[in-house]
Amino acid sequence: MFSQTVEYALRAIVHLADQSPNPCTTEQIAKATKVPQAYLSKVLQSLRQSNVVHSQRGIGGGISLVKLPEELNLLEVVNAVDPICRIKTCPLGLKGHGANLCPLHRKLDDALRETETAFANTTLAEILSSSTSSYPLCNEPHERLTPLQALPVVPIKK
Amino acid sequence: MFSQTVEYALRAIVHLADQSPNPCTTEQIAKATKVPQAYLSKVLQSLRQSNVVHSQRGIGGGISLVKLPEELNLLEVVNAVDPICRIKTCPLGLKGHGANLCPLHRKLDDALRETETAFANTTLAEILSSSTSSYPLCNEPHERLTPLQALPVVPIKK
Repeated sequence: MFSQTVEYALRAIVHLADQSPNPCTTEQIAKATKVPQAYLSKVLQSLRQSNVVHSQRGIGGGISLVKLPEELNLLEVVNAVDPICRIKTCPLGLKGHGANLCPLHRKLDDALRETETAFANTTLAEILSSSTSSYPLCNEPHERLTPLQALPVVPIKK
Repeated sequence: MFSQTVEYALRAIVHLADQSPNPCTTEQIAKATKVPQAYLSKVLQSLRQSNVVHSQRGIGGGISLVKLPEELNLLEVVNAVDPICRIKTCPLGLKGHGANLCPLHRKLDDALRETETAFANTTLAEILSSSTSSYPLCNEPHERLTPLQALPVVPIKK
């Protein structure tokens, strides 16, 4: 029911939220999320076009979230790459129905609405703070790098 | 979120349930459901392979439901053509997760489960008997043909 693109976009965003506010390179995201890099590049392009992520070139640059993980919900990510299309009028184009859906299309739209609501009500911060034994994208109990630890260590030549 | 194939399969089954126990030809279903005939043939093939419909050749033959509309639910139709794949183990293959889904995949699977349950709990008979101003696949208030009316009228030559 959810496309591969949705799955990959959500993995990438979870990784970016986890590293936020630090930016990540496409290579880093691909490695952490186990997404093929070529596919990931296209997914990130859609996320950039929808203003979910932005990228900055140069030293210290990379891809990062536009919003804070507390302010970004799953629906925004899904709709950026493969939108949930609610059924607003009769898909058969029957004039007698119009926006008055028949029981079949009402049932399908109910399922879409339920998913939409569940995703809209879940932020990336909630995904990362849920108490469960499995931390997103990580095999081992998670230790998050602090911004200082994440900086490359450049040896000083004397 | 639902594929074109799912939409077309459900329309075809709703029409067959509406005409049940009378069989219908592919042409009749295509016309009633506004589904391209070539696409419909493939959808009906999947439904036949999954034992949701059966077809009988010859005079009085055609395609009909295997079960009664009261016994056939939406999930059986959806799963016959484009199955809802629940997330049973970590899609990244992380050994530490296994069947212990992380909060992201738990949330996705929750949405799949909700849809699965809603579809499993809705029979075709319920879709056809729901009180709403829009009758499935029909523009006008519905008049269902009786088996006798449905038979072709052959003029008797004297």
